[in-house]
Amino acid sequence: MNTDTLADTAAEPLKVLAFDVFGTVVDWHSGIVRAVDALGLAVDGNTFAREWRASSKSALALVNAGVQGWTRFDELQLQVLDELLARRGITHLSDEQKRELNSTWEQLAPWPDAVEGLTRLREAYTICSLSNGNLGLLFKMAQRAGLPWDTILSAETFRAYKPDPKLYRGVAHVCDVQPHQVMMVAAHQDDLDAARGCGLQTAYIERPQEFGPNCPDLDRPDPANTRFATSLIDLATQLGC
Amino acid sequence: MNTDTLADTAAEPLKVLAFDVFGTVVDWHSGIVRAVDALGLAVDGNTFAREWRASSKSALALVNAGVQGWTRFDELQLQVLDELLARRGITHLSDEQKRELNSTWEQLAPWPDAVEGLTRLREAYTICSLSNGNLGLLFKMAQRAGLPWDTILSAETFRAYKPDPKLYRGVAHVCDVQPHQVMMVAAHQDDLDAARGCGLQTAYIERPQEFGPNCPDLDRPDPANTRFATSLIDLATQLGC
Repeated sequence: MNTDTLADTAAEPLKVLAFDVFGTVVDWHSGIVRAVDALGLAVDGNTFAREWRASSKSALALVNAGVQGWTRFDELQLQVLDELLARRGITHLSDEQKRELNSTWEQLAPWPDAVEGLTRLREAYTICSLSNGNLGLLFKMAQRAGLPWDTILSAETFRAYKPDPKLYRGVAHVCDVQPHQVMMVAAHQDDLDAARGCGLQTAYIERPQEFGPNCPDLDRPDPANTRFATSLIDLATQLGC
Repeated sequence: MNTDTLADTAAEPLKVLAFDVFGTVVDWHSGIVRAVDALGLAVDGNTFAREWRASSKSALALVNAGVQGWTRFDELQLQVLDELLARRGITHLSDEQKRELNSTWEQLAPWPDAVEGLTRLREAYTICSLSNGNLGLLFKMAQRAGLPWDTILSAETFRAYKPDPKLYRGVAHVCDVQPHQVMMVAAHQDDLDAARGCGLQTAYIERPQEFGPNCPDLDRPDPANTRFATSLIDLATQLGC
């Protein structure tokens, strides 16, 4: 497939919206804080949640770099959790309790606008996840949260984690469209930068509460994004859905 | 994951139903016959449809054997179509006409019981496709036919075609359950044999019209299957849905 040109973009309409999930569609921070606090650990839930997320990103990068062989997202998250707990000297949680805490990631609640926004967007476009989360996590989340995906695509589908180009090129290939007929939708500019590098359109969703009420989101949208929206409902309106 | 034992089977309930699609959920034969006949080719639509399907199975086996590198299902189907047409001296179809004929596979209609059966089964189980069809074909089919999958799994997910064990083990791994907590649902005993070899439960669906009204289905269910049903509605009733 060729990368797009302005002429192509005009000729071939947008077909597929590919969504980042954690932070863009679901609110990971408040869900993880609640689950950590419920265990009564001697840790600050806010800090712990942010550290889990950040350490997980580093672990994904090590897999992409080949330092660790292919490992599924939920297994990586559990490894990271083990390390975080050990570093804090928390040794009394059973394996079952750790697995249960880890499963919080599949139970996260959507942002209030997400289900309505996705449902409206689905009337005019194919909508799919394009998340580092594993397939099982994503479909359990979809079942529980009522996320109306046409199909669930994951790092697991392509055996690489974002921002590896395999995912962005892969979504166009799977959907049998040109890259510029796909719009990556995310609350993270690094995800959109990588998508644009592969010829995808990009929509930045502003999620000022992603890291909790006391931690300002330092991410800033690039004006080069195709769209900027304050919610998935806003994006639906902008796209005429 | 261990393979199941009787004790395990009793302890851990059935969770996931994985469906073969072509022949089991959708009626490929009559759809392909109609599309071939509509082109007014000097061929018998019935014969052509059955030959396309049979030659495609051989092509999939060559990929599994490593004779041909990984090739997506829709691309293989197009290669096979090219060969079938060439063998009959049909040279006047344009590439566009051939691609359009090939896209019939994503437009196939479900058997009359399929949508109601799947909808009822989904109330109690996770339902997914486990088809040799590629992801894009399967989600376009689901959009058009209203197939309510929780998630779409495909040979493309595992980069191997049925009956490679990767698919049957893969569905259990993706869904995070033991193999015996998955039931493979298919109208083809060879698919179920391979699934049972990987520890899955099996349900045989009788589709006497799979190869058209004038071609009896010679496939016979093994009494060792967990279930035998005359439709997906019958299966739903048997499973208490």
